[in-house]
Amino acid sequence: MEERQLKRKEQIEPPKGKLGVLIPGVGGAVSTTFIAGVEAVRRGLAEPIGSLTQLGTIRLGKRDEYRIPRIKDFIPLASLEDLVFGGWDIYDANGYEAASFAKVLHRDHLDPIKDFLETIQPMPAVFDRRFVKNLDGNHVKPGTNLRAHVEALKEDIARFKEENGVDRCVMIWCGSTEVHLKAEEPHRSVEALQKAVDADDPRIAPSMLYALAALESGVPYINGAPNLTVDIPAFVELAREKRVPIAGKDFKTGQTLMKTILAPGLKARMLGLEGWYSTNILGNRDGLVLDDKDSFKTKEESKLSVLEYILQPQLYPSLYKNYYHKVTINYYPPRGDNKEGWDCIDIFGWLGYPMQIKVDFQCRDSILAAPLCLDLVLFTDLAQRIGMHGIQEWLSFYFKSPMHKQGLYPEHDLFIQLMKLKNTLRYLMGEDQITHFGLDYYMGDA
Amino acid sequence: MEERQLKRKEQIEPPKGKLGVLIPGVGGAVSTTFIAGVEAVRRGLAEPIGSLTQLGTIRLGKRDEYRIPRIKDFIPLASLEDLVFGGWDIYDANGYEAASFAKVLHRDHLDPIKDFLETIQPMPAVFDRRFVKNLDGNHVKPGTNLRAHVEALKEDIARFKEENGVDRCVMIWCGSTEVHLKAEEPHRSVEALQKAVDADDPRIAPSMLYALAALESGVPYINGAPNLTVDIPAFVELAREKRVPIAGKDFKTGQTLMKTILAPGLKARMLGLEGWYSTNILGNRDGLVLDDKDSFKTKEESKLSVLEYILQPQLYPSLYKNYYHKVTINYYPPRGDNKEGWDCIDIFGWLGYPMQIKVDFQCRDSILAAPLCLDLVLFTDLAQRIGMHGIQEWLSFYFKSPMHKQGLYPEHDLFIQLMKLKNTLRYLMGEDQITHFGLDYYMGDA
Amino acid sequence: MEERQLKRKEQIEPPKGKLGVLIPGVGGAVSTTFIAGVEAVRRGLAEPIGSLTQLGTIRLGKRDEYRIPRIKDFIPLASLEDLVFGGWDIYDANGYEAASFAKVLHRDHLDPIKDFLETIQPMPAVFDRRFVKNLDGNHVKPGTNLRAHVEALKEDIARFKEENGVDRCVMIWCGSTEVHLKAEEPHRSVEALQKAVDADDPRIAPSMLYALAALESGVPYINGAPNLTVDIPAFVELAREKRVPIAGKDFKTGQTLMKTILAPGLKARMLGLEGWYSTNILGNRDGLVLDDKDSFKTKEESKLSVLEYILQPQLYPSLYKNYYHKVTINYYPPRGDNKEGWDCIDIFGWLGYPMQIKVDFQCRDSILAAPLCLDLVLFTDLAQRIGMHGIQEWLSFYFKSPMHKQGLYPEHDLFIQLMKLKNTLRYLMGEDQITHFGLDYYMGDA
Amino acid sequence: MEERQLKRKEQIEPPKGKLGVLIPGVGGAVSTTFIAGVEAVRRGLAEPIGSLTQLGTIRLGKRDEYRIPRIKDFIPLASLEDLVFGGWDIYDANGYEAASFAKVLHRDHLDPIKDFLETIQPMPAVFDRRFVKNLDGNHVKPGTNLRAHVEALKEDIARFKEENGVDRCVMIWCGSTEVHLKAEEPHRSVEALQKAVDADDPRIAPSMLYALAALESGVPYINGAPNLTVDIPAFVELAREKRVPIAGKDFKTGQTLMKTILAPGLKARMLGLEGWYSTNILGNRDGLVLDDKDSFKTKEESKLSVLEYILQPQLYPSLYKNYYHKVTINYYPPRGDNKEGWDCIDIFGWLGYPMQIKVDFQCRDSILAAPLCLDLVLFTDLAQRIGMHGIQEWLSFYFKSPMHKQGLYPEHDLFIQLMKLKNTLRYLMGEDQITHFGLDYYMGDA
Repeated sequence: MEERQLKRKEQIEPPKGKLGVLIPGVGGAVSTTFIAGVEAVRRGLAEPIGSLTQLGTIRLGKRDEYRIPRIKDFIPLASLEDLVFGGWDIYDANGYEAASFAKVLHRDHLDPIKDFLETIQPMPAVFDRRFVKNLDGNHVKPGTNLRAHVEALKEDIARFKEENGVDRCVMIWCGSTEVHLKAEEPHRSVEALQKAVDADDPRIAPSMLYALAALESGVPYINGAPNLTVDIPAFVELAREKRVPIAGKDFKTGQTLMKTILAPGLKARMLGLEGWYSTNILGNRDGLVLDDKDSFKTKEESKLSVLEYILQPQLYPSLYKNYYHKVTINYYPPRGDNKEGWDCIDIFGWLGYPMQIKVDFQCRDSILAAPLCLDLVLFTDLAQRIGMHGIQEWLSFYFKSPMHKQGLYPEHDLFIQLMKLKNTLRYLMGEDQITHFGLDYYMGDA
Repeated sequence: MEERQLKRKEQIEPPKGKLGVLIPGVGGAVSTTFIAGVEAVRRGLAEPIGSLTQLGTIRLGKRDEYRIPRIKDFIPLASLEDLVFGGWDIYDANGYEAASFAKVLHRDHLDPIKDFLETIQPMPAVFDRRFVKNLDGNHVKPGTNLRAHVEALKEDIARFKEENGVDRCVMIWCGSTEVHLKAEEPHRSVEALQKAVDADDPRIAPSMLYALAALESGVPYINGAPNLTVDIPAFVELAREKRVPIAGKDFKTGQTLMKTILAPGLKARMLGLEGWYSTNILGNRDGLVLDDKDSFKTKEESKLSVLEYILQPQLYPSLYKNYYHKVTINYYPPRGDNKEGWDCIDIFGWLGYPMQIKVDFQCRDSILAAPLCLDLVLFTDLAQRIGMHGIQEWLSFYFKSPMHKQGLYPEHDLFIQLMKLKNTLRYLMGEDQITHFGLDYYMGDA
Repeated sequence: MEERQLKRKEQIEPPKGKLGVLIPGVGGAVSTTFIAGVEAVRRGLAEPIGSLTQLGTIRLGKRDEYRIPRIKDFIPLASLEDLVFGGWDIYDANGYEAASFAKVLHRDHLDPIKDFLETIQPMPAVFDRRFVKNLDGNHVKPGTNLRAHVEALKEDIARFKEENGVDRCVMIWCGSTEVHLKAEEPHRSVEALQKAVDADDPRIAPSMLYALAALESGVPYINGAPNLTVDIPAFVELAREKRVPIAGKDFKTGQTLMKTILAPGLKARMLGLEGWYSTNILGNRDGLVLDDKDSFKTKEESKLSVLEYILQPQLYPSLYKNYYHKVTINYYPPRGDNKEGWDCIDIFGWLGYPMQIKVDFQCRDSILAAPLCLDLVLFTDLAQRIGMHGIQEWLSFYFKSPMHKQGLYPEHDLFIQLMKLKNTLRYLMGEDQITHFGLDYYMGDA
Repeated sequence: MEERQLKRKEQIEPPKGKLGVLIPGVGGAVSTTFIAGVEAVRRGLAEPIGSLTQLGTIRLGKRDEYRIPRIKDFIPLASLEDLVFGGWDIYDANGYEAASFAKVLHRDHLDPIKDFLETIQPMPAVFDRRFVKNLDGNHVKPGTNLRAHVEALKEDIARFKEENGVDRCVMIWCGSTEVHLKAEEPHRSVEALQKAVDADDPRIAPSMLYALAALESGVPYINGAPNLTVDIPAFVELAREKRVPIAGKDFKTGQTLMKTILAPGLKARMLGLEGWYSTNILGNRDGLVLDDKDSFKTKEESKLSVLEYILQPQLYPSLYKNYYHKVTINYYPPRGDNKEGWDCIDIFGWLGYPMQIKVDFQCRDSILAAPLCLDLVLFTDLAQRIGMHGIQEWLSFYFKSPMHKQGLYPEHDLFIQLMKLKNTLRYLMGEDQITHFGLDYYMGDA
């Protein structure tokens, strides 16, 4: 983007019309928790806990000015009332059936909005079992011609907009983790990508077809899985051409969230790391998919690099050069959607003396992911409206593997990510950057 | 301080001569671990893990400039070679005996520096058992006349400087937690304080006599315990008058350190808090002292307020208004100095669904505290040399209950504290503040 | 009892008629969970998990005979169909209201049996706030005359039997923990006790009045709390005179249950113990009562002695002489009835090398206690029917502080307790004792 | 064995002469910890914590007789003074070097017995890398002729006896876990086994050659690993022929020990099990070996079956039919020999309500195994001396997968195992079996 094309301050107008939220994997646990939750909030039945856009505040100016508006009162975002949901799934269950199957939300929360949820009917999905081995669905688009799939998806998008009177759309991938792919020749440029689609190249994953359909329709794409998808030069180029935002990848929830909280804490205090063992147990469909070792490889890479970037062993060799990092995920049905992560962290302090931290995080996967979906949809729509296209690095806060410009390292530290996000908002609205420098309060008091 | 009197950039000269480190409680576990560690590092036998001044780096300029010097190469600090240790204790054990008794460091680390440690002979302490009920020592100054005690301490300081050829001094309290005191009449002004000392007022704690002796000798005072000591108007006034820095209070180690890492993480993600139960077990002398409920009260206050300030319930009533926070400390001899903290944290997310975090931190009290002592001594000496007197809020990073200017709230978030510290250093050396704003990297790339 | 008076084998007839279950504290969490559960099981809506009488089996004869009947098919016990519930409470809520307030069972379990639960109307309780400081109720019998209270309770019992057509009764205390009492003069004999009741002696707790009313009515008394109550010579004497069983004390659930599982394991393997730190958090009414330090003292004694008896330091001084044992209970409302216990156990093995065990038990107080109530009621009724009066040591399995004959030590090891219980049943039915001796299987195979 | 051939009571004479302890894997962590420990105990430098033979007592007669001798004073066992150690290893390090490498015992424990440990020189081992893929040693017997290996081992045994003036021997396998083998044709009979050895059959593991050499030399064989080895009909037959005891398999330490403590506790209380997830991290050579999935399969089978036998789902379908059991082992170098096991146990109680138990066992593999070696050597020698040959089921207490007679199920419950062991000792010495029946104490007191 160019600065002069970026709208700022009073140029940023309140959004008008409806915002379509298009979700590949619309019948999954995360999607249904997200959708049902938005509706419950709209009806005043629950609160959007975990959502920065809805509950977060932003400090402006000096500490003693006490100017701390809510983020949504500070910068014009789409309102919950204007969201319209749709999407694709390999199972044809409607939103109520799918949410009931997911067993994340209680009957007490689902029943009052049953009427609404039943209106969410998934469109047939583009699916290829080579990419997700442990699942099988029958609500899929026929044939194996990739270009035909892209065109069908684009028609789906157009029809959805028309049928729902939708003004703008955002696509957010809440589907499964695909098998591990590396960026290769067909991913190097828009031209190569288009050629590969035409050639039904096996290195083109279904998620890439969704992204292509989105970008060609002028719709931003958010990648909630660790899939490669838009994290390739071809899509970065296409996003710039079409002036559309892209964001990803892999929602940062559960154990990795915890890791990006704790690791910055250890590093702040210059405590050394000898080893970090992480095990996860979960019993939902995500756990089943990750029981396939090819899908796990995709996830594992996303999970392992986090520490490396936060701890900067090249700067702190005596602290972080040789730590042993191991991550395992186990399918464990008794846990259901209630993922549990156990971390065993071996650190060392003064003179090298060892200490240990054990963290048992009994979390809920979809409960943690749902508010991220909401925030990402609203912030990405904002970006689209004001002309911030391409990689949205300021949204790193939400991702396990934040996309970033080539030549820059990704930022994984949750606290730096939050500061980056908020200072970006301050910049957009013409407010001073916050630095937490505080010496000025203490000057001139002699 | 006034800005024009503050030395900055090239005005900040490398320190010359020796720096005396005067420690009330010099024979305790923290002190001996600190002193023995510094000597071991000086002899190349170990590394000062945990010390920001020795191992920390500071990023300057833009992310892609890769200017990241070590802090100690960036701003002139006293070198470890120039530190000379002395202090007071209620037991007359020398440094080697005291360190052996503390059982923090192994024989393997103590034996090679036995010769050095044996030279650390404590001076007789000012002690009053009403303030520390579970200890009793016999290496104390005679009499109960407070003014006489202050004068004796000042003579100790002067003699120490002369005998050791010391140029500058810093006093750092590593003694026990005293019983709980509230700021009252005798603490309101320098005049009232001096009058109370003359009157042997029972509201004047021994630690205050040390602080008074320090400040009147032009020596900065660092408060490593939760004791009231310099956190009263009288000492703030005196510090300004004498142009001496004061810092405190209560070294942030163990469970509270963990709390100020985790709580900002929960808040970053707008996750609600229903309850936080913290239990500590430790078996060292500190544990014994805190088994007295009056001393515990002092500690408890220091520990409880942390969450309140980080979570800001006034801004986030739906998330943090009604959480239940409980902290207990238990004397448990099998653990020795190896403190263990167990946290049971009840949080809630999207639509109010509950989740749990359990943290078991098997840490070592003195190992965590020793590098804080080192950093605080070096940074406070820096402050003294360049004219930053009074409360050192920029050192909040190191304390459970950071001292702060009246009318400002204390900053407890470890990550904001670190940013504050580093941006202060950047300011002092004339470098730009870091804001983590990153949009500029992405502009102009169309 | 005398052996010739004890009915055995075919003398043990199936019970006839209804069995009244009389519960002081009938509106509490344990009672309502017990009562609602029995009804749910009767209606086929749930299973009596945790109940030895309902689900347990008993191996008879040799391992290769495979004779393993259910306990309830082996020895004639009252059936669930024949139980009739009643009791006293200081709050006048009916069974449905009380169960809803307790928040142990979900609406899904309570609603289908609402009609039944509403029929449980508590009789006004005998209550004295000096014995339970943190509670206050208004559904109490008037006056403070102890003898009058006993008579009123006896009338309640008689009326209950008549109104409900009940054949036999058992009283089981599910009320609160009273303040700590020691066995003193008024507890030494039946005569002294009766005199003390007449004199309104303050050492006579309300629970003793219930027990007196029960025994004088020929009704067995089971003590589910750590209260002294029947664990005094006076009641042992009275039980013998009246030929009525008594059993107690303090239901073994949660952390103490875990302790009597783990400690026998450590001892089996001759692993030494250096320390055992136990902390409990719970948020129900029980937690509130135990926040009063006098009530906690009663509980603490019950909890602490367990290890001492299991580990036998007098036999194993090198292993168990000097361990440090600490138990704390904390009121922590977020946990509700879902008690959580955390144990930190410091053990040592071969040559004294230290190891650690941490156990986090996220249990549910009433869920663990309810099946104990059921078993105790049925087994105590059996004892009554066949002439086993006085202390029921064979039921030690269910109690934190098993009552026992003077001169014998109590048995705390859960596995020995279970063996004792089952071998008692085998004895009663004329089957061989099981010894787990197995050499015979291997003999004669040459 | 036949009863009339079994020596009992006064026929059991105190052992005379020296007892040779022959260890395949003599240079491993378990072996060196065992050997060094015995020597340290002999010199009065440490205590044999964890050893039932050395510290255990045995109750005789009634509870109020207080006859509770030490086991070693009750039944004549070889004394520690009479043990002589030898063995084989694929590395040629002597006992001191090997123990130092293992890093289990501190320098403080090894240095005072360095002279002794250096005398332990391993004989060259029989090794075949196809059976232990992640190790490689060079101190091995040449060639691949299996019969030649057996003969070489027999010569080693004979020479060891002669050179050390040893009267009797016991062989105890402390080597690595071999890849998974199933009992097949060559394992069906002595004849088939001998034929397979002659034919260099690849289904004959190295451990079987050791066992063959031992039994043919009249030396009992104890199997400390999960290897198949003597747990096949061929060796059971051979042991009977040669009248030699065999015992196995897989020392029960760490997480499985914990499991056989906890599972009987859950079952005692009829608490249901929904899932049990166990993860292990360890960094020693054992961890490295088990990182090979074929070796892990051998271990996994040994670990998984434990629950099945204890919980008896066929008897308790509503409690134990459908639990999900998962065991993982991870090589994690920071932990060294200090194995750590984390168990996440999902149970359910009354009406099916779920509860959770988490156990973190920070143990030390070799410290737990060493006393088992000692006990097994002494008890197996006892068995040999008194004519108890073949499978020693009474020693099930020590094994993860206790060997048992065909047609009988193995006993995994630690408490039943201990009872079995002690009642066997009582039987041998002519004492009454203990049943924990206690009603007799309460009879006749009317």
